[in-house]
Amino acid sequence: MQRYQIAVIGTGPAGLSAAVTAKIRNKTVLLLGRQSLSAKVQKAHAIQNYLGLPNISGEALRQAFQDHLDAMQLSITEAKVSMVYAMGDYFAIQTADENYEAESVILATGVVQGRPFPGEEALLGRGVSYCATCDAPLYRGKTVAVIGASPKEEAEAEFLAEVAQQVYYLPLYAETPQLSATIKVIQDSPTAILGSQKVERLQTKSGEYPVDGVFILRDSIAPNQLVPGLQTEENHVAVNRRMETSIPGCFACGDLVGKPYQYIKSAGEGNVAALSAVAYLDEKKRSARA
Amino acid sequence: MQRYQIAVIGTGPAGLSAAVTAKIRNKTVLLLGRQSLSAKVQKAHAIQNYLGLPNISGEALRQAFQDHLDAMQLSITEAKVSMVYAMGDYFAIQTADENYEAESVILATGVVQGRPFPGEEALLGRGVSYCATCDAPLYRGKTVAVIGASPKEEAEAEFLAEVAQQVYYLPLYAETPQLSATIKVIQDSPTAILGSQKVERLQTKSGEYPVDGVFILRDSIAPNQLVPGLQTEENHVAVNRRMETSIPGCFACGDLVGKPYQYIKSAGEGNVAALSAVAYLDEKKRSARA
Repeated sequence: MQRYQIAVIGTGPAGLSAAVTAKIRNKTVLLLGRQSLSAKVQKAHAIQNYLGLPNISGEALRQAFQDHLDAMQLSITEAKVSMVYAMGDYFAIQTADENYEAESVILATGVVQGRPFPGEEALLGRGVSYCATCDAPLYRGKTVAVIGASPKEEAEAEFLAEVAQQVYYLPLYAETPQLSATIKVIQDSPTAILGSQKVERLQTKSGEYPVDGVFILRDSIAPNQLVPGLQTEENHVAVNRRMETSIPGCFACGDLVGKPYQYIKSAGEGNVAALSAVAYLDEKKRSARA
Repeated sequence: MQRYQIAVIGTGPAGLSAAVTAKIRNKTVLLLGRQSLSAKVQKAHAIQNYLGLPNISGEALRQAFQDHLDAMQLSITEAKVSMVYAMGDYFAIQTADENYEAESVILATGVVQGRPFPGEEALLGRGVSYCATCDAPLYRGKTVAVIGASPKEEAEAEFLAEVAQQVYYLPLYAETPQLSATIKVIQDSPTAILGSQKVERLQTKSGEYPVDGVFILRDSIAPNQLVPGLQTEENHVAVNRRMETSIPGCFACGDLVGKPYQYIKSAGEGNVAALSAVAYLDEKKRSARA
């Protein structure tokens, strides 16, 4: 079985950036993920803060990433990884169809969302958003609901209130939200997002609210179960600034390692993870030689 | 005097990314630096790993950054900052011509290079490079010299040896380099880089070497003296993963906070710094309200 030098798991901005830099450093790279790259990128309305690509649509950004892969002759192995085992000297990577081996692994699988609300997936990019910084400008003068998983999200609602005409805020927690008077707090559980072509209403246990958009702001969800023994912190994979995890040779980057959930942040971390993996491989080679 | 919410010092990828995200978050932004943006970006031959902009020249990347500023109506205040004082509730920013005030500061001033070798600045981008990952492909089959400030740089020389025909390695340290036999170690001090239109020779105390390129790989230099009281680590500004420095309200990002010195890494960190500054301002507002 071919043993790759670097396996990258995930084809969002973090994984792609890692793969590009690993390839430039002449390493053998296995890039596992989706041929269609990231659904989250593709469905984004417009991204304002990916430096160098002003006001770009999600689909255009996805295409720019694909062009970069093509220019570098990087191909994606379409696979859903079910498990990664640290074997000491290498990693065994299990997918539904096949197993792979690599000397080092870069995890870039994104945030595992919790159980979605009914209508959430169908209306993603059509009024459902996970990012106030990204999508607020689309709701100038409109009505939006913010579903906040923790008090930290109240600042996001405040920001939306600077732009939208009406903001409803639905806390998923017990504490009383501390918000400006212009924001209407709804103490009720959201149950579904309704609409045919786009978001029209938010349904709660005891009512319905006509809205143009729903921002679902969850905490990091589901601790990463992919790599047995991997240390996590508040449901994210724990890393240092070199993107090293608790397992030597295993690196992580992007949404998986924590907020902010931003494309350019993920791309930057992917670059760092790749160069740390290169340093790890070089060090291993030096030790073997000594 | 107007007190800005966020002052960004530096107009490389880190500073620009920070300014763009701060502006999106509706903060008043003072962006201090050079109208010409970053000389390092501009003079780069070609950048392969800025995800989404494959194989782009330094000048084209600089232009893409400028277009992004224009699209966001962000302007640069041309100024060299001489000192930043933390005043408790705000920061006082001193330049040669004028003083400014801001509630928070994002430092993105890059790596302060040590004293340059004669010829280094004139031939930057014409054979002189600071980044093996970036520029190695230009020297396929050619002869390059690597000036390494620490044993860490030996891995860079190894990488160059995979591409170049001949690599000379000049250590600026006492330890004996551990390198492949193909790399020629020169135990002599570099004194100047010579050439008219492009690099032609490397001069040392006791000799001259015909070369096509010179890679100068310094450690992080000059601790940041800009902000009195700011904590540094190995000559870089110390930050956590949120890009917070030791001074509340003061954030840092890019080359200034450590390696790898990569454009996409800097842009990602700028984004994080801006969102941390936004969170800091929100928290301050909340405390004032409570």
